[in-house]
Amino acid sequence: MSFAKLDELGRKLEALEHALAILGADEATHMAPGGGEKRAETLALLSGMYHRQATAPEIADWIAAAENEALNEDQEAALREFRRQYINMTCLPPEFVERQTAARIRCEQLWRSLRPKNDWASFQPALEGVVALVREEAAMRAEALKLDPYDALMEQYDPGNRAADITPVFARLKAFLKGFVPKALAAQGERLARQPLKSLSGNYPVEKQRELGLAMMAALGFDLNHGSLSVSHHPFCGGVPSDVRITTRYRTTEFLSALMGTLHETGHALYEQNLPKEWSHWPLGKARGMAMHESQSLFVEKQIGRNPAFWQWALTVVETHLGERWALAEILPHVHHVERGLIRVDADEVTYPLHVILRYELELDLIAGRLKVADMPEAWDAGMREYLGLGTIDNPADGPMQDVHWPAGAFGYFPSYTLGAMMAAQQWAALTQEYPAAEEDLVRGDFSAINAWRRERIWSQGSRWSTPELMERATGEKLDAAHFIRHLEDRYGKA
Amino acid sequence: MSFAKLDELGRKLEALEHALAILGADEATHMAPGGGEKRAETLALLSGMYHRQATAPEIADWIAAAENEALNEDQEAALREFRRQYINMTCLPPEFVERQTAARIRCEQLWRSLRPKNDWASFQPALEGVVALVREEAAMRAEALKLDPYDALMEQYDPGNRAADITPVFARLKAFLKGFVPKALAAQGERLARQPLKSLSGNYPVEKQRELGLAMMAALGFDLNHGSLSVSHHPFCGGVPSDVRITTRYRTTEFLSALMGTLHETGHALYEQNLPKEWSHWPLGKARGMAMHESQSLFVEKQIGRNPAFWQWALTVVETHLGERWALAEILPHVHHVERGLIRVDADEVTYPLHVILRYELELDLIAGRLKVADMPEAWDAGMREYLGLGTIDNPADGPMQDVHWPAGAFGYFPSYTLGAMMAAQQWAALTQEYPAAEEDLVRGDFSAINAWRRERIWSQGSRWSTPELMERATGEKLDAAHFIRHLEDRYGKA
Repeated sequence: MSFAKLDELGRKLEALEHALAILGADEATHMAPGGGEKRAETLALLSGMYHRQATAPEIADWIAAAENEALNEDQEAALREFRRQYINMTCLPPEFVERQTAARIRCEQLWRSLRPKNDWASFQPALEGVVALVREEAAMRAEALKLDPYDALMEQYDPGNRAADITPVFARLKAFLKGFVPKALAAQGERLARQPLKSLSGNYPVEKQRELGLAMMAALGFDLNHGSLSVSHHPFCGGVPSDVRITTRYRTTEFLSALMGTLHETGHALYEQNLPKEWSHWPLGKARGMAMHESQSLFVEKQIGRNPAFWQWALTVVETHLGERWALAEILPHVHHVERGLIRVDADEVTYPLHVILRYELELDLIAGRLKVADMPEAWDAGMREYLGLGTIDNPADGPMQDVHWPAGAFGYFPSYTLGAMMAAQQWAALTQEYPAAEEDLVRGDFSAINAWRRERIWSQGSRWSTPELMERATGEKLDAAHFIRHLEDRYGKA
Repeated sequence: MSFAKLDELGRKLEALEHALAILGADEATHMAPGGGEKRAETLALLSGMYHRQATAPEIADWIAAAENEALNEDQEAALREFRRQYINMTCLPPEFVERQTAARIRCEQLWRSLRPKNDWASFQPALEGVVALVREEAAMRAEALKLDPYDALMEQYDPGNRAADITPVFARLKAFLKGFVPKALAAQGERLARQPLKSLSGNYPVEKQRELGLAMMAALGFDLNHGSLSVSHHPFCGGVPSDVRITTRYRTTEFLSALMGTLHETGHALYEQNLPKEWSHWPLGKARGMAMHESQSLFVEKQIGRNPAFWQWALTVVETHLGERWALAEILPHVHHVERGLIRVDADEVTYPLHVILRYELELDLIAGRLKVADMPEAWDAGMREYLGLGTIDNPADGPMQDVHWPAGAFGYFPSYTLGAMMAAQQWAALTQEYPAAEEDLVRGDFSAINAWRRERIWSQGSRWSTPELMERATGEKLDAAHFIRHLEDRYGKA
């Protein structure tokens, strides 16, 4: 039975994935400071073992043979997804991967040292090398997958996503936001003029914030028997579905950044904890992709976690754990604060998509060869001026040098963030249409019906469908910017 | 170059060891409660990968070929130890190992459920199965290694240790202790009659105890850049030399058990942190064995950590962190408390060896076929009555069912504990003979010269020598019970 051979292989690969995931989470949370060098060596060797075992030539024969075996529907889906992943993993020659990995690591190291110095000139040649290699990569992936080069890159992160579908959706959102950002800022100004911002008390001990986070996680459905919350410099969701490790970081002067970060990672964690366990050792049992994963985190952080109905309940939890009573009208200006800025990761949900759309447009041009790396600072500056009215020409560190993605060779990844935001809004719209009591549930802190919907439509589906298929099956329609636009208008458009 | 092939293999094995070690430590400290099943599956699969890679048949050819290559002295030592380990790992047929592993796991599970019920009758058949298999194992190991069966078992834990050498040393110690335990108890009684025991205050917050432990660790030379202290149900020293994970557990009613446990694990950790790094991926770079490792932990816990000179300094650290002032004469009765009891792990350094010697004698008889498992409760009871004046005939849970070692199939391991205690005393004697200021250093909390001696004589040697060779090179003589006996007389013999 070739299917059985793939099943056995899957268990070995899952064990290595488990080791890589826990060692990765451990590195950011509990590793001794001096343990990093040996840990890096270990992760590289284990990744090599994983890659060698996952791409062995005989697997192609097992896949081909399994396709002629009598399989049930689940097994057929499992085999289909295994085949897709195998092709994606084997379509680059190993010597190319080695060359590219070395260039990425060098460029990323260079980026870490040059960004603080705002030194684009020294960084540019390294990035040029990475872009040249990623264009080679895209061409090879395109050839193997019969896709356009940029689509072939996206295929690694969000199977089925195509620039031809995304570009018009992003164009509509961009056209809306260019007018809406000033409108939202003006509305915010009027509100703050009417009722000045109430300051935070500035006295929030870490232990109390942690208890608040744990209480929210538990209420939202995070299974504390299969996961935990700890601290790291950059918040993340890691680990394995049986033991999901989420992290946050605390400032004792305010509690919202740690809490909203915890809600975001809880969204990722719910997806991982509710994947189909019986397929955990097959690609079928994994989360669908980056955009869908981000839709789950943003669903919890933005659709639920910044919803005024949610805060009616959340303020009682805050009072219990922090001993501070807030009125809804006092907290919402903090939760819904909008501000134009240069930095993507600091952006709010109104301005964030413009950061992403800029990167998406520049990436498309880079991969197509229409834009040279040397011309990037000007192109970035022009885009930021047009979209957010902010220039970066003398400040590349906060311009095209701001993210790790490009130096690390990750092209085709950026769209996932804003696709996720749109997908979350569309999921919330579909859910509330079918289940109009959802907002009332938020007021009571009852997330069971909401989670049941998400479990059935998304979590339990694993990687059975492509990203657009899964979205359409879950919400009844293709991705449509209208839902996210309506969400932003409702939340941020009123003075 | 076959040596180079072994070197490359060593790096892969080290990566898997790293994963196994960190995942193991993580399981006991940070894993989510429900993560255990998948973790167990992962550890089993990774162990399987390790074993398959470490015992591949072609390695025998590489070893043979490397023996004809031009190697320097270090490389020759590395190859010698690699060969020894390869033979130890490959001398059992895989189907036997599988059968034995299954029997061990079943017997250990049974033990966990039957020990609380004090049910020897149901446990006996499972233990008989394990003993039958371990006798088969011993015969096969003996054949491959040209050793006596029990020596072949010990060889896994302490290369070079032989029953013919150990038995007379244990016999001398036993003869001494049978008379000395009553004498030490009487002396203790006289001291307590003169000065009654000062009670502990019973108010020791965990966080303060933890700071105390970290301060002691740092002073003793534990490198906090390459290790950490956390909490687990059973204290251990795990992780990897670049990131040593030690644990303790706290009771807020007293501070000595957590502290002495921390000192014990710090002793293990110092050995791991100071092994020769350039050979970390070869057996040569690993710690020598169980007895030598235990000698390092007991050196810190008993030779240093219960030394009155050490406590002159330690009381100042205790005062700093716990805010309690103790006089030396008040604390020593706690640190030097002697008590006859049934349980090995609760025993003090005077009575502990009798627990071990009993097990050693019974093990020898079991493996030789002179003792039947069915006769074990009577034999155990007779030994405990003779050595410690305590019977267990109606209480097998605290008799032959008290330890996990036998149900888990670990025979030949028990002697390591008391060999370690004797070796630590002999090391301390050799050190103080060469460096008479050692006790003065303890008074000042200065461990640098003591650690320098240990680093040169023991830690840096890795697995270059057999256990008895390493001991003789470090101390200038073969293992001799006289040092440990003198140590006990000095510390416990005076009224």
